[in-house]
Amino acid sequence: MWADLDPIGRASSGGYRRFAWTAEDHTLREWFAGECAARGLDMVEDRMGNQWAWWGDPDRDGPGVVVGSHLDSVPDGGAYDGPLGVVSGLAVVDALRDNGFVPARPVAVVNFGDEEGARFGVACAGSRVITGAMTAERVLGLTNADGVTMAEALRRAGRDPDTIGADPETLRRVGQFVELHVEQGRALADLDQATSAVAVGTDIWPHGRWRIDLPGTADHAGTTALPDRQDAMLSAAEVVLAARSAAASNGCVATTGKIEVEPGGVNAIPSHVRLWLDARGADQNAVRATVSAVAAAAARCGGTLSEESWTDTTRFDDDLSGRLREILGAHTPMLGTGAGHDAGVLATAGVSTSMLFVRNPTGVSHSPAEFAERDDCLRGVEALTKVVQELAS
Amino acid sequence: MWADLDPIGRASSGGYRRFAWTAEDHTLREWFAGECAARGLDMVEDRMGNQWAWWGDPDRDGPGVVVGSHLDSVPDGGAYDGPLGVVSGLAVVDALRDNGFVPARPVAVVNFGDEEGARFGVACAGSRVITGAMTAERVLGLTNADGVTMAEALRRAGRDPDTIGADPETLRRVGQFVELHVEQGRALADLDQATSAVAVGTDIWPHGRWRIDLPGTADHAGTTALPDRQDAMLSAAEVVLAARSAAASNGCVATTGKIEVEPGGVNAIPSHVRLWLDARGADQNAVRATVSAVAAAAARCGGTLSEESWTDTTRFDDDLSGRLREILGAHTPMLGTGAGHDAGVLATAGVSTSMLFVRNPTGVSHSPAEFAERDDCLRGVEALTKVVQELAS
Repeated sequence: MWADLDPIGRASSGGYRRFAWTAEDHTLREWFAGECAARGLDMVEDRMGNQWAWWGDPDRDGPGVVVGSHLDSVPDGGAYDGPLGVVSGLAVVDALRDNGFVPARPVAVVNFGDEEGARFGVACAGSRVITGAMTAERVLGLTNADGVTMAEALRRAGRDPDTIGADPETLRRVGQFVELHVEQGRALADLDQATSAVAVGTDIWPHGRWRIDLPGTADHAGTTALPDRQDAMLSAAEVVLAARSAAASNGCVATTGKIEVEPGGVNAIPSHVRLWLDARGADQNAVRATVSAVAAAAARCGGTLSEESWTDTTRFDDDLSGRLREILGAHTPMLGTGAGHDAGVLATAGVSTSMLFVRNPTGVSHSPAEFAERDDCLRGVEALTKVVQELAS
Repeated sequence: MWADLDPIGRASSGGYRRFAWTAEDHTLREWFAGECAARGLDMVEDRMGNQWAWWGDPDRDGPGVVVGSHLDSVPDGGAYDGPLGVVSGLAVVDALRDNGFVPARPVAVVNFGDEEGARFGVACAGSRVITGAMTAERVLGLTNADGVTMAEALRRAGRDPDTIGADPETLRRVGQFVELHVEQGRALADLDQATSAVAVGTDIWPHGRWRIDLPGTADHAGTTALPDRQDAMLSAAEVVLAARSAAASNGCVATTGKIEVEPGGVNAIPSHVRLWLDARGADQNAVRATVSAVAAAAARCGGTLSEESWTDTTRFDDDLSGRLREILGAHTPMLGTGAGHDAGVLATAGVSTSMLFVRNPTGVSHSPAEFAERDDCLRGVEALTKVVQELAS
């Protein structure tokens, strides 16, 4: 399966550009449908085009055990973020059948669409729409960098935008959802090698975005003496370093990945800088303390910090996570994550959800260098197979 | 005259948006032509559309004394940068005539076009083209932010781009050029108030532009632990602060006014930052030392610094500057400037050139807050009148 997926949407960088409702996305969906058909799974699409491939009939036999993830990518993304969970799900079906397992409950593999939000800017659009976390109106109005709306992109992909929306019927079929995903940090690499190929997810860290506005005074770069300047870029530099330092002392992470400078000329002293802060951490108070420190740094430069979004800790189903650990053994690490996932959206919507993480030796993700050892991937499939076998017995 | 100019190209910010070959530029040219006609001056345009208004005939009586400046502005520029020199030039003609002065040599007021380069990115395009410092081919191919070429902009303004080019005939008519300009720093404000309303220009500081490339590693902002990051934005912050600190210790100025971040997402660790440095100073070695320090800071982050442009000190004609000081009195301050001017382009082309600077109490320039006291402006006109009277006797 990896060999089939390898070339789809691969850019010259070696990374992937697999964006929602593009030709590459269509090829990936067709590939998924073909794999499911080859296994005799019953593939249905929900009201946002997410693909659910059923082994057994959840409408007849009750809610089933669902595994899977997504196939789309960030710009120049890696091969594992998303596809590892989908491929592992299909491999689990093969392994269970090879074992002669007959599930007492239905089992499904899901391919969620548009998890990364690379094209329209909102992550987990597929799961957000079916859970009602995002309205059809809002998602259809999202635009890509060229101003193409999601509605138009759906039409171009041969879809009818009028049919999309919340889909409680689909969610009712999900008894448990276990999303397997490549780890996106190096927490497991630093643990005992023998017992840390796979971890059970516990929660998605609290996280948020803040905008920092830093004022300056427009002035001539050649003639204004240094003491006479109010240079917003200097303020931005101070705030960037303050964010790093505050995150380090509070034990969370902070990133300033986007900046806008006015007027933005090489020979013009910056009169205004807008800088965005992303901060997350296992402990909500630590994140809040970090943001307060950044706000204080901005205030020292005469600037302001304002919140654009905030999401509290999303806990997976503790009972389910505990059961996964029982199934996999008490040595299994339990891991919170700083990244968003469809599993988090489903958990917020009240679906019993947990995750498995497969060790990433470098921790690199959202990059062509993203990697997991083949042996670790196989141990991921083994673990997920055990889980489904237990849950579906 | 100020009242006529006041509303032209004025933006809601209170600043001016007077860009080359726009409707506002056309209005300013028409205004200048009208003022010259009202004074009976003989207005001719050169091969780049710069307007020369002659009192007397340089082709018959030999090269004349030229004063003037430009009428265009940077985005949200001030009222004085440029127009003060043009208006003062016209006022000098009035004052000389009121005094009953009959010039022995021709006198002209010039309005250079496109001095700021705000629309097409190259400063002093008007003087560069006529002196041959920039070829017609290069200037016609320049594009504005919307991709409109200079050639197309000229056509839209009713000009024939095929006629533009070097104009040695125009330059031969210029015996001396004295550009009066508002000061763009606060050097004069810090001197003895009584004797520092007007200074004589000595030179344009050496200056240059450098591009700094800072590498990082694309990674997930939520899941990558701080010690595992190579965040190019942190490097940029270090370099921005290093530039300021190096400039301060070397006694020159450095500005980082433009930055580009890849991938530029709020939740993506920056994998590459391009940062531009503008550095200038009275002493060439001090500027070079500053740039070396910034290069070292970039190298510490694994980055590189490369030179995009460098211009040595442009000295005005020392004999002419000395004569101006004689005319104005030994108390007159002599001042180098960190800004480029058409006077510098003409000086480089071998024209005998100098400048007068009118005190700027705040030093602010390229901003709506740019200002000069009315009394100082009048003293500028008096000084320029004396200069022209002496030089044209």
